[in-house]
Amino acid sequence: MSDVDSTRPYVVIPAGGGGTRLWPVSRAARPKYLHALTGGDRSLLQATYDRLIPMTAADRVLVVTGAAHVTAVGEQLPELGAEQIIAEPFGRDSCAAIGLAAAIIERRDPGAVMASFAADHLIGDQQRFVETVRLAVRGAEAGKLMTIGMTPTRVETGYGYVQCGPETDLPGVRAVLRFREKPPYEAAAEYVASGDYLWNASVFVWRTDVFLAALKQHSPGIHESLSTIADSWDTPDRKRVLDEIWPTLPKIAVEYAVMEPAAADGMVATVPGDFGWHDIGDFHTLGEILDDGTAAPVEIGGGDRGSVVVHDSKGLVVYPGGGRLIAAVGVENLVIVDTGDAVLVCNRDRAQDVKALTELLRESGHTEAL
Amino acid sequence: MSDVDSTRPYVVIPAGGGGTRLWPVSRAARPKYLHALTGGDRSLLQATYDRLIPMTAADRVLVVTGAAHVTAVGEQLPELGAEQIIAEPFGRDSCAAIGLAAAIIERRDPGAVMASFAADHLIGDQQRFVETVRLAVRGAEAGKLMTIGMTPTRVETGYGYVQCGPETDLPGVRAVLRFREKPPYEAAAEYVASGDYLWNASVFVWRTDVFLAALKQHSPGIHESLSTIADSWDTPDRKRVLDEIWPTLPKIAVEYAVMEPAAADGMVATVPGDFGWHDIGDFHTLGEILDDGTAAPVEIGGGDRGSVVVHDSKGLVVYPGGGRLIAAVGVENLVIVDTGDAVLVCNRDRAQDVKALTELLRESGHTEAL
Repeated sequence: MSDVDSTRPYVVIPAGGGGTRLWPVSRAARPKYLHALTGGDRSLLQATYDRLIPMTAADRVLVVTGAAHVTAVGEQLPELGAEQIIAEPFGRDSCAAIGLAAAIIERRDPGAVMASFAADHLIGDQQRFVETVRLAVRGAEAGKLMTIGMTPTRVETGYGYVQCGPETDLPGVRAVLRFREKPPYEAAAEYVASGDYLWNASVFVWRTDVFLAALKQHSPGIHESLSTIADSWDTPDRKRVLDEIWPTLPKIAVEYAVMEPAAADGMVATVPGDFGWHDIGDFHTLGEILDDGTAAPVEIGGGDRGSVVVHDSKGLVVYPGGGRLIAAVGVENLVIVDTGDAVLVCNRDRAQDVKALTELLRESGHTEAL
Repeated sequence: MSDVDSTRPYVVIPAGGGGTRLWPVSRAARPKYLHALTGGDRSLLQATYDRLIPMTAADRVLVVTGAAHVTAVGEQLPELGAEQIIAEPFGRDSCAAIGLAAAIIERRDPGAVMASFAADHLIGDQQRFVETVRLAVRGAEAGKLMTIGMTPTRVETGYGYVQCGPETDLPGVRAVLRFREKPPYEAAAEYVASGDYLWNASVFVWRTDVFLAALKQHSPGIHESLSTIADSWDTPDRKRVLDEIWPTLPKIAVEYAVMEPAAADGMVATVPGDFGWHDIGDFHTLGEILDDGTAAPVEIGGGDRGSVVVHDSKGLVVYPGGGRLIAAVGVENLVIVDTGDAVLVCNRDRAQDVKALTELLRESGHTEAL
């Protein structure tokens, strides 16, 4: 606790995933985290950085992203040096992304604490968020693989759950018994009613040496591959080694590869987070998060902002990002998205199906729009 | 009947009106008749010309339009000489527009037959249409003020009706007893059931000398004003006289100013038209007219055509005129219009209310979009 850096963890932001449910804002060439979607001009990635920087320092932030997006990430976060943006040749799921970051940090600063946060989440109470992370950092310093589990606010079958055990020696920190994948409704209802389950938001805090030891124990092949890549990372050999080894990595989430078996060993603990947490997954959810309770359309920020004029309409979520005037007459419960080259009109109850639309676009030859 | 020109009437196309229910396709600077809306590349005005030219000659067509649209009309109809486009300084309703055309034709070719057709109608059966007009021309030659009344195909409260009397000496031509403005539903139902009422589509055929005499009798002030203007039309004085007199003309429809009182005098007759007639008034109606009976979206032509891709949607009318991809997910019964600078999403049942939207746009300062 005496080391000033003990409260300044390395922050890792895995910025991957397609975000196809947010098409046509989110595109292959410019995924959702590069867009401002929650009001204001800052992208989801920038908002994530802004939220985390008060508890660390700019030179302790790393972004793991696809090679195609390194330039855009660097433009959006000019505070980061080139060595702070870790380019994956292509996505190999979260164990590879987070594990590579852990292995690189371990070589640069052995035994450091790192905290990993997705680039597409929204946090309500910043003060409480910081306090929760600080507590998780203390658990990590004590040698635990920490998660921050979100206190459930509804029965939700779309998320994974963390099953908690008793409180540990550290007040406010609970043991994690196991991870439960997206449950059926009745199981989810039981979980939420019990008070012993938290939503797994894939927020992790750990000492890199502790994580890498657990990775070596439970997924030794991945550990060996990532170690080899990390050894070469800050050398001229990086590209050759990466090109050779990266494609051999299995696509697996860190929950399966490390956290689930480590929880069975009593290595995992959690801090419940009730700071108001949202996953920016689709336009309907975004509309719910940003709804001010009036009948006016919920306007999602970003892009070349156009005007929105509605007549006798309600329940609209509008992204006026094409610089055009968006007008609605006599409609309800719709998502209307305008971008430079595509317009989407979607029933809010069907916002999840925008993903299916993108598959239809691929099949019908509109690949330029993806 | 021996004169070849007796079957070649002057054709007058009044191209006026805002077409605000077709916003954002129809704009003050480029009203609906200048747009292709019914499939193909020809605008409503061009389609009207194409439909009429077989029964006349290019040098016998006149378009009456707003001064602001003379250039666009000339570009769309290069067959017309400058003297065939009659520019109104501003709209003064149909008596002024049609009356001025009649007075100008009378001076150029006394006693000629003229036939007036709106620029925004759609005709189904061209052959029958031509036969109907030819019969009306014979009635006009015989000294009647002829209308072509459309055989009603449904109870419609949005149109005016023509009440027919017995057949005249000319087979297929019926006397007109009076004009009935937009009736309440029960009256309209009675009209349609009776077989004695036709829709008034403001299609008129008459000898210019006969019409001007009726105008002089029933609206002498308008007759005098239009005569003065027409006397100066093909002289250097046109602009001075027009600027002085045009603003003094009352805004009145030719039905009120001439046809209704002339019908009471037994001067008006009609030919029932059952060639399939549509008034292109709003997007919903346009969708009904162009519907091919499949679940696929009805695509309205024109503009810089973009693609339309829909997932699990039906009953859509789409105008992809902004060159963008238009996508829909899980929606029904909507109008989706994309133009270069504005997007409209409208419930099809509320297509009439697009007019109210344009008023809202004016009030909210979006005059550039009108």
